[in-house]
Amino acid sequence: MTERIPVFLDCDTGIDDAVALGYLLRSPAVDLVGIGAVSGNTDSSQAARNTLDLLGIAGVTGIPVAVGAHHHFSQDYRGGAAHVHGDNGIGGMQLPRSEQEPDARTAVELLIDLSHQYAGTLHVLAVGPLTNIALALQADPTLPSRVKAFTVMGGACLAPGNITAAAEANIHNDPEAAAYAFAAEVTAQWDATLVPLDVTMQHTLEEQHQHALAASDDPLARVLAEMLDHYMDFYRPIFGRRTCALHDPLAAVIAAGEIGLSDAPRVPLEIDTADGPARGATIADLRGIHRGTGDSSRGGVRIVRAVDRPVIDVLLDTILR
Amino acid sequence: MTERIPVFLDCDTGIDDAVALGYLLRSPAVDLVGIGAVSGNTDSSQAARNTLDLLGIAGVTGIPVAVGAHHHFSQDYRGGAAHVHGDNGIGGMQLPRSEQEPDARTAVELLIDLSHQYAGTLHVLAVGPLTNIALALQADPTLPSRVKAFTVMGGACLAPGNITAAAEANIHNDPEAAAYAFAAEVTAQWDATLVPLDVTMQHTLEEQHQHALAASDDPLARVLAEMLDHYMDFYRPIFGRRTCALHDPLAAVIAAGEIGLSDAPRVPLEIDTADGPARGATIADLRGIHRGTGDSSRGGVRIVRAVDRPVIDVLLDTILR
Repeated sequence: MTERIPVFLDCDTGIDDAVALGYLLRSPAVDLVGIGAVSGNTDSSQAARNTLDLLGIAGVTGIPVAVGAHHHFSQDYRGGAAHVHGDNGIGGMQLPRSEQEPDARTAVELLIDLSHQYAGTLHVLAVGPLTNIALALQADPTLPSRVKAFTVMGGACLAPGNITAAAEANIHNDPEAAAYAFAAEVTAQWDATLVPLDVTMQHTLEEQHQHALAASDDPLARVLAEMLDHYMDFYRPIFGRRTCALHDPLAAVIAAGEIGLSDAPRVPLEIDTADGPARGATIADLRGIHRGTGDSSRGGVRIVRAVDRPVIDVLLDTILR
Repeated sequence: MTERIPVFLDCDTGIDDAVALGYLLRSPAVDLVGIGAVSGNTDSSQAARNTLDLLGIAGVTGIPVAVGAHHHFSQDYRGGAAHVHGDNGIGGMQLPRSEQEPDARTAVELLIDLSHQYAGTLHVLAVGPLTNIALALQADPTLPSRVKAFTVMGGACLAPGNITAAAEANIHNDPEAAAYAFAAEVTAQWDATLVPLDVTMQHTLEEQHQHALAASDDPLARVLAEMLDHYMDFYRPIFGRRTCALHDPLAAVIAAGEIGLSDAPRVPLEIDTADGPARGATIADLRGIHRGTGDSSRGGVRIVRAVDRPVIDVLLDTILR
């Protein structure tokens, strides 16, 4: 068996964050070595609490969970997305409170510590706004030199946005942080991958999958099935059927290397931080797609446009193993 | 036979503009009643000269061609796109000079006059930057009330741009004019359609089509075939084969109603006039596509995403009839 990948997860837990967490805890490819909480779907304190409680349900101890900044890099926290993820981020579910408390370090401190502990092998997986990541880069510009890969769920390149017509919520919540994290001098130092709505909206969890989770003996799977109710209600008018998109779980499976990338050109990426209608948009230079590849060979960021199978298959195989 | 549609063409002729012009002159569905020239592919004076010379080759007289503004609505003319369309807009070809001179009126004056002459039936087809259109709207805000339909080749919604990663050249050349022309109070008054790169890049003219034009007895068809050489050279690295996109001709065929729109939701459209990387982008709210339709029924602009057959078939049938 190959070495497990040490993963630092930065998340705003969040229903699909919870599914991603469930996958990361159970994947044989992953060693989840630390978690940062960021404001996004809910505030960073609540996100940390949700994460701790989910770890408790999973029976997992020893993974530090650190609270990140409450406000974003250059704008205030906006109060979360209760209509998507419920008032508390996890569909309003009251989970048994775990005895584990947040780490004494901030998310930034934890990430920097882990980048030394796992220097050269650490993967950073960010599935919320990039606030903590930008703050860590600001605090220690040498961070990328010790991180092997940086995978982000966020953005909408040739797909519609979700929070606006042009922008996806994670990036739109903190465009300046995203611009910091995807600056050319940073992306030159680590292997950066963006998992945007272009691909995540193509990967859904359907009612039969929810039922499979609900029928499990595993308490974590059953809790995920229950909180998915709220999320699937939100997505019903968007897809025209009761389902939900697997944004964060897809990014997690990609970070773990457990799915193949069938269309993922590496191209220049700019984040729109202007005040126009494209604020928070991820401008990837995909002009190469007309000749059959978007790969400009100009470096930049790998933009995942398609993977080689439905991610739900990987998720259920792993969570229900 | 149904009534011919009176069409005012605003163009920056331009190789694909020339093909569109050839189609409009020959289409039994169209009565081309006036032409405005705008700076874009080349400057407005040269665009008018090219247009007049093409009318001469076609043996057509009596269509007024008016010169529009040299500079754009809110930025200077940038010198054209010689690498795409040649130094003179038509691939460097030296056409026999037509005896017809430009109309004494400006393009704005001609458009406003025609809007009275054909009040309630005039179609405005704009295949260059929207400078003249914005200036006409500024000069006479009642213009849209007399115009039946407004069809624009421009923009890139869920497709890459061409002049930048996010923006298409017509809109990027004069974003403020486009914002003026697509302002909600304007689009509420006429039937507005955008024909963006999303669909135009799917419609190409291949070498065998060029050969068919070259083999024609019609001098206009032969001239088009010759100037297409330059355009197809430009597109070779973009498509990976010698071909070219039929941007303006597709908009012309759509304006003439000679092709069916198989995917054309009517949605809110914003033009990015900020100074970020999305300047000149066309932000159409296509979030409805995940449920099978982008039609939000919130008014706005019809965004053509697909048509019901290859436009080259319509073009060749008409030009070579």
